[in-house]
Amino acid sequence: MRIDILSCVPSLLDSFFAHSILKRAQQAGFAEVVVHDIRDYSTNKHRTIDDYAFGGGAGMVLQIEPIAGCIRKLQQERSYDEIIYLTPDGELMQQGMVNRLSLKGNLMMICGHYKGVDQRVRDLFVTMEISIGDYVLSGGELAAAVLSDAIIRLLPGVLNDETSALTDSFQDDLLAPPVYTRPADFEGHKVPEILMSGHEAKIESWRHEQSVKRTRERRPDLLQ
Amino acid sequence: MRIDILSCVPSLLDSFFAHSILKRAQQAGFAEVVVHDIRDYSTNKHRTIDDYAFGGGAGMVLQIEPIAGCIRKLQQERSYDEIIYLTPDGELMQQGMVNRLSLKGNLMMICGHYKGVDQRVRDLFVTMEISIGDYVLSGGELAAAVLSDAIIRLLPGVLNDETSALTDSFQDDLLAPPVYTRPADFEGHKVPEILMSGHEAKIESWRHEQSVKRTRERRPDLLQ
Repeated sequence: MRIDILSCVPSLLDSFFAHSILKRAQQAGFAEVVVHDIRDYSTNKHRTIDDYAFGGGAGMVLQIEPIAGCIRKLQQERSYDEIIYLTPDGELMQQGMVNRLSLKGNLMMICGHYKGVDQRVRDLFVTMEISIGDYVLSGGELAAAVLSDAIIRLLPGVLNDETSALTDSFQDDLLAPPVYTRPADFEGHKVPEILMSGHEAKIESWRHEQSVKRTRERRPDLLQ
Repeated sequence: MRIDILSCVPSLLDSFFAHSILKRAQQAGFAEVVVHDIRDYSTNKHRTIDDYAFGGGAGMVLQIEPIAGCIRKLQQERSYDEIIYLTPDGELMQQGMVNRLSLKGNLMMICGHYKGVDQRVRDLFVTMEISIGDYVLSGGELAAAVLSDAIIRLLPGVLNDETSALTDSFQDDLLAPPVYTRPADFEGHKVPEILMSGHEAKIESWRHEQSVKRTRERRPDLLQ
């Protein structure tokens, strides 16, 4: 998989892709993430890429010309399965969407900033608008990082143990059960006895019960 | 506001707090973000902080002792309004929650990793569990960055124009209207004429209509 991210603050993303599973995924050749500086496609010598909103109002708007220039250059090099714009008014990201995107080959992600991008970028180029949640961030960079991380960890071979992702919350519409590790006794607070029993079937059934209980208490909407 | 983040991959967060509005917010003294390496509180010489889950199964679990050590040291230095654990089975983050948290003084955020933290950390120390969305990430670091960004941008003085956040999506339960900037004509695609009219009241009313229309089309749940 290849992910191209268009940003006006590319350095924001430096450390995310240089560590942890994203680094391993890139080193092992499972994923390639390339961050592009929209400013490199500015049409003027001051390298500006934003301007005031037509009609007035607070906040700057990212101009279409630099973004269009970057998109078209990338499209000359390869075709993209989706050109994604990260925006709070997009479709809410959830695990099923992530699963589907993890099967694609080339994704482009556009990060808004300030008041967002000129609407014509969305009308003319974007094929999918995604929101990571019902809240506003200072830019789309973190949202692109969140989406990339969620996708890349699902690529075969990226997680150390491939079965690991299958027991995540949401993969079966249930929240994950509580987990415990050593010490068995922390200042008098003990691990549930069933987990120390060595009885695999009973442990499985306890975990499933706990998952259902937690989901019913916290997220009854997932059970419907 | 002070935010302390407990992580086992602190370097993941380096670039994020070194740029953009989070850097400005810290330089101007509006917010202080300190990232702590849980590994520094390991109770053994190999600096390990995770172990296999009791009862078996894929994935490692973060141990309680290092996390408890870090939390208690910080609590000796100041009291915390909330000790937050970022987890996909927490309460769904939304703008109202962010608004409320932005009024607090000291927040602690614990980032899970692998299969999460030992349940006893949650039972004994955590006061609030937050999920940034219905999907799974490789760790809580990105979630802590998302939550911090959403909170810090609301602190008075952080955004260049204080009115800017008030016209965001969600602040009035409506999605933001489309925005446009120069050029007025991009390859034949023109900005809506009303925005060029200079008629403030009509522009306001057009924007409100567009907000309502977009919300009805994309997120009718917000209108209820």
